[in-house]
Amino acid sequence: MEQGLRGGGSRPAEPGPCLSSQCGADQAASVSLLSAAGAEPGSRTLAVAAVLPAGGCGERMGVPTPKQFCPVLERPLISYTLQAMERACWIKDIIVVVTGENMEAMENIIKKYKHKRISLVEAGVTRHRSIFNGLKALADNQPNSRLSKPEVVIIHDAVRPFFEEDILLKVVTAAKEHGCSDYDLEFGTECLQLALKYCHIKAKLVEGSPDLWKVTYKRDLYAAESIIKERISQEICIVMDTKENKEHISHLLEEVLKTELNHIHVRSQALYNAGSDIQHIILEQCYNFVCVNVKEPDFQETQKLMSMLEESNFSILYSIVVVSVHFLDFKFASPSQKMESLMCIREFAKKMKKRKVLLYGLIINYSQDEQKLQESLRQGAIIIAALIKERNSALIGQLLVA
Amino acid sequence: MEQGLRGGGSRPAEPGPCLSSQCGADQAASVSLLSAAGAEPGSRTLAVAAVLPAGGCGERMGVPTPKQFCPVLERPLISYTLQAMERACWIKDIIVVVTGENMEAMENIIKKYKHKRISLVEAGVTRHRSIFNGLKALADNQPNSRLSKPEVVIIHDAVRPFFEEDILLKVVTAAKEHGCSDYDLEFGTECLQLALKYCHIKAKLVEGSPDLWKVTYKRDLYAAESIIKERISQEICIVMDTKENKEHISHLLEEVLKTELNHIHVRSQALYNAGSDIQHIILEQCYNFVCVNVKEPDFQETQKLMSMLEESNFSILYSIVVVSVHFLDFKFASPSQKMESLMCIREFAKKMKKRKVLLYGLIINYSQDEQKLQESLRQGAIIIAALIKERNSALIGQLLVA
Repeated sequence: MEQGLRGGGSRPAEPGPCLSSQCGADQAASVSLLSAAGAEPGSRTLAVAAVLPAGGCGERMGVPTPKQFCPVLERPLISYTLQAMERACWIKDIIVVVTGENMEAMENIIKKYKHKRISLVEAGVTRHRSIFNGLKALADNQPNSRLSKPEVVIIHDAVRPFFEEDILLKVVTAAKEHGCSDYDLEFGTECLQLALKYCHIKAKLVEGSPDLWKVTYKRDLYAAESIIKERISQEICIVMDTKENKEHISHLLEEVLKTELNHIHVRSQALYNAGSDIQHIILEQCYNFVCVNVKEPDFQETQKLMSMLEESNFSILYSIVVVSVHFLDFKFASPSQKMESLMCIREFAKKMKKRKVLLYGLIINYSQDEQKLQESLRQGAIIIAALIKERNSALIGQLLVA
Repeated sequence: MEQGLRGGGSRPAEPGPCLSSQCGADQAASVSLLSAAGAEPGSRTLAVAAVLPAGGCGERMGVPTPKQFCPVLERPLISYTLQAMERACWIKDIIVVVTGENMEAMENIIKKYKHKRISLVEAGVTRHRSIFNGLKALADNQPNSRLSKPEVVIIHDAVRPFFEEDILLKVVTAAKEHGCSDYDLEFGTECLQLALKYCHIKAKLVEGSPDLWKVTYKRDLYAAESIIKERISQEICIVMDTKENKEHISHLLEEVLKTELNHIHVRSQALYNAGSDIQHIILEQCYNFVCVNVKEPDFQETQKLMSMLEESNFSILYSIVVVSVHFLDFKFASPSQKMESLMCIREFAKKMKKRKVLLYGLIINYSQDEQKLQESLRQGAIIIAALIKERNSALIGQLLVA
């Protein structure tokens, strides 16, 4: 549940941060829509802020850590909510309301995951009081405040990490378009009442989506982890040397991956000019790389990819999975012989883990028998899919065989 | 939410099935409690039945399969609910209400997972009508029915797989003790109204626990899978040859597993007389085995364990994880040399997968250096924990190195 709270102020709004160079194409579209939703045609964009109450102690969770700080894929839950909120670059200020004892932890999270536009405010004794504190910080009579008074404030639970920018837009548009009545309040939640009573701000309830669920119990953390794992497993980039011809083994593997993992988007990338593209690929939400090694020495291609990943200073929010693939005809040599020369992957993987890269090795039987080759490639695709889906850090540096 | 519905009938109850030899110690305790809850001291046990509406089409799930038939760890969700219901052996009959088109699928599930005391009834056009059909089948005027009229009927959603026997007892006890009033109904759900209106049966609402949640959305399936994985990962049995002395590597591994996995119960079992005990261990909810191989040929111990597992005809409800552990001093031989001799694990694992055993190999560095040995054992424990937790069938037959 989200509420858009429309401020009574009439002072001219600041230009939205959406016009900054940080915004991509998607954000630009949102800005137009937001602008179009304004009352006056051709007018300025709205000044929007968000308040995230995060003062809960998570007693229903059955774990000692408050739920907003519980780790999901090794990152605190609240960081996912902030990430989703930041995607809407037209939100100028994001106020997170936390208890005094969690203030330092919250500051560290913001620093570590490089969250932007965040201000921290101390929580009150109740959720209502906390929201009030957040709203008060946004009021225009605060001394020494770098925050400017917004026209619309979105109030959003810190423990609801899954929402799209369009629901935020819907909330803001509704807040802009609709007045407030007692009728609305009857069907709203207690927060709406709070807004009217204490802040003299009008309020309207906007229909949410099932994605807007709240992490309350331990099972919700499990669900959140699975949803995030699924989301970041949807894209695989095969890194190969495309100077080779189309019948090359890299392309055969790409075809099998596309067939076997038909719900996943598989793309390929030439290694020799990947440097500038790697950052771009990660920006496009691809956190999974399959690196095909065909040259001597064994890890030449993987090492080159690793250097590129390290240089691009990428993986702040998610660990990146890299599967280093090697081929060998098992008829002429045992996979264990190949393993001998690949054993250094263990140390390599330990080193890369510190940089948030999960590295695994995979040896595929490059049989001359067409049917056997297809079966090995299919087996390899299944193993690659499993490694990417599970993102299991206990198995880094292992050499698997298909 | 569950309701106990108390029948108006006064005909003498059948002796409860709880006294049968199938009941273990836990069940016996439940029977006493149930008996003690009866109105007359020293009296007979109550005749109890359960109706499980399972006619839903799962439209909110966003998947084509109705949610009660969605696979969780490769087994349909409803089978978990039946398993939990069957644990209460004092419930004489379990009526599952399914649509005509799912009748055959449901019959196959019952057969495959050997569920007992189940009768199938065809669903009506609404959930209410389905419950009514289930209750009607239990009425004493049904011709050719093998079902006998119960005194108390538990109505429980087929998509709520997590509940303990004690909540069922609480429901039944409340149904037995309390009369029904309009006041109760006001705070109850629509099902209570239904019971009163159509079946002339008294009803009372009993407080449930958070575990009683309903699988509604796809995220709930994720949560259910994680909860089940966690539950069946709580017990590990180390199979070893205890003719060796206490300083033996098997015992060292056991100690490290106990220290590293302190939330998991680790026990050990001598292999030479394990035959009769394996069945017992599985009955006690242990689905995870670590088999320590120290003899030649390499898989002697694992193969013996596998034979025992096959003979005991065990794993109907869950796949069993077996980690075959092998030791080697990496200072004197490369792990790849050991892998060479262990490569047959791949075919072995494929064969065992058909029997619902997930087999993985693990080579641990048996260093003479005490510190190195401890580190390898610790690493091994982490890998074992990961394999057991994930139960990933894509990785069976792989040889991992610690």
